[in-house]
Amino acid sequence: MRVLENITSVKNVIRSEKARGARIGLVPTMGFLHVGHMSLIERCVKENDITIVSTFVNPAQFGPNMDFDRYPRNIDKDRAMLIDASVNYVFHPSIEEIYPHGYNTWVEVEKITNLLDGASRPGYFRGICTVVLKLFNITMCDTTYFGQKDIQQALTIKKLINDLNLDIDLTIMPIIRESDGLAMSSRNEYLNPEDRKIATVIYKGLSTAKNMFLQGESRASELILAVQDVLTTEKNIHIDYVDVVDMDEMQRLDNTGDICCIAVAVNLNGTRLIDNIILEKQSPTPL
Amino acid sequence: MRVLENITSVKNVIRSEKARGARIGLVPTMGFLHVGHMSLIERCVKENDITIVSTFVNPAQFGPNMDFDRYPRNIDKDRAMLIDASVNYVFHPSIEEIYPHGYNTWVEVEKITNLLDGASRPGYFRGICTVVLKLFNITMCDTTYFGQKDIQQALTIKKLINDLNLDIDLTIMPIIRESDGLAMSSRNEYLNPEDRKIATVIYKGLSTAKNMFLQGESRASELILAVQDVLTTEKNIHIDYVDVVDMDEMQRLDNTGDICCIAVAVNLNGTRLIDNIILEKQSPTPL
Repeated sequence: MRVLENITSVKNVIRSEKARGARIGLVPTMGFLHVGHMSLIERCVKENDITIVSTFVNPAQFGPNMDFDRYPRNIDKDRAMLIDASVNYVFHPSIEEIYPHGYNTWVEVEKITNLLDGASRPGYFRGICTVVLKLFNITMCDTTYFGQKDIQQALTIKKLINDLNLDIDLTIMPIIRESDGLAMSSRNEYLNPEDRKIATVIYKGLSTAKNMFLQGESRASELILAVQDVLTTEKNIHIDYVDVVDMDEMQRLDNTGDICCIAVAVNLNGTRLIDNIILEKQSPTPL
Repeated sequence: MRVLENITSVKNVIRSEKARGARIGLVPTMGFLHVGHMSLIERCVKENDITIVSTFVNPAQFGPNMDFDRYPRNIDKDRAMLIDASVNYVFHPSIEEIYPHGYNTWVEVEKITNLLDGASRPGYFRGICTVVLKLFNITMCDTTYFGQKDIQQALTIKKLINDLNLDIDLTIMPIIRESDGLAMSSRNEYLNPEDRKIATVIYKGLSTAKNMFLQGESRASELILAVQDVLTTEKNIHIDYVDVVDMDEMQRLDNTGDICCIAVAVNLNGTRLIDNIILEKQSPTPL
């Protein structure tokens, strides 16, 4: 595995890989890799000739009061995991390499970013869209992989690809959970053992709503209440949002319809955690 | 010459041209071609294996009170001129092809777009940056050509290319003028014979400032006053701006320095006309 730190080297190696006809897969990450990331990376390695993983902690997607400085980093462990997974290239640029002095170009996807994290974190999706478009251009990738854990991010990038006429296939991979249901996240690192236990209520709440849905509840208001009821059993959990949204534009729904997403964000003693679950009507089993 | 109206056909033909190693040049226009456009197109044909010219009148760069509906169009004449110039492909999409229902992705370049047309026309550069990035992605071009007439546009797109890590060479071609000095523009079509004569004061004003500069005047305020004095000899001319800006970020200068640009926009009986002149200190003649 080669570690690349500047844009010119990435362009040079990718150009020569493409000249021999290689299909390039990109997994954009912010490092501090966990099993969730690795599921994307393994799929990428399987489906492409060349896999490049970026591990850039993108300051543009952190608000002024967010955790950019304390965001967990462990480059050595990341690289060992990427070598094990047979990744070809890791791209780990400096901030100045991505945003040189005088950098001024920004990309936004409207509407789909209005609610959920887009509403709670001003500038968040602008930062993500911009860095991901740059990574697409730098790596000239044919395919890319995003996790369902950040569902609004994955669908926003899918929309960006489509709107900007890029030729990139985007695959969304399922959420990987700890054995007690907590969605894998680099930010779980922030949790002390007590909060780590409390955090399990998020998935409990989502599972409660899913069971209600499977038993026929289709009113968004009832499903949201059910999730809120479970979350508020823990006094250290502060709800940022619980919303039922469509899977196309991430807009609020009154009714689940055939498919929708319940998305949750909470603050647990200063740690922001998000999770979601997709509710989809089962097709009737064929006889 | 092939006329292409949808994105898929452009991608298909360009992909096969690139597969045989062709270098692709793009000249983005809004049609109603004149000698100014043709100077870009001829240069593009000379420097590339394949030249594609787009003739899309981009609604996103027209404000609500601008002239989108009456913007001059003459597809047949455009095509005859493009055939004469040995252009390979013309891309003339519908609005729905470029901005399908639900289109929501926008690109902005900050700072360089703050003054001049960026200040006078809210949303103008956002519309331009977005459509040009889409045209770059659709045509997968290696090179592109812009005119100095729209200097802020040309430098903004150059900045966008650089910031977004695109591999596209941008060439800025000099302003082509009528014999009386008026810069070529599709909007000159709007002028009645009387206003057409009045319009010549724009270049007269710029030339006056240039002569002062060549005689040693370096104070922006004096150069601006000189241009304004010439423009205000015509009572039908309403000045939008006269500014002395740097050639890097298009910011106002107090002093010309070694190189700068005087940019002018006026309204002449409802027709908006822009022009500019680059002031550059001559290097001392070598002995």
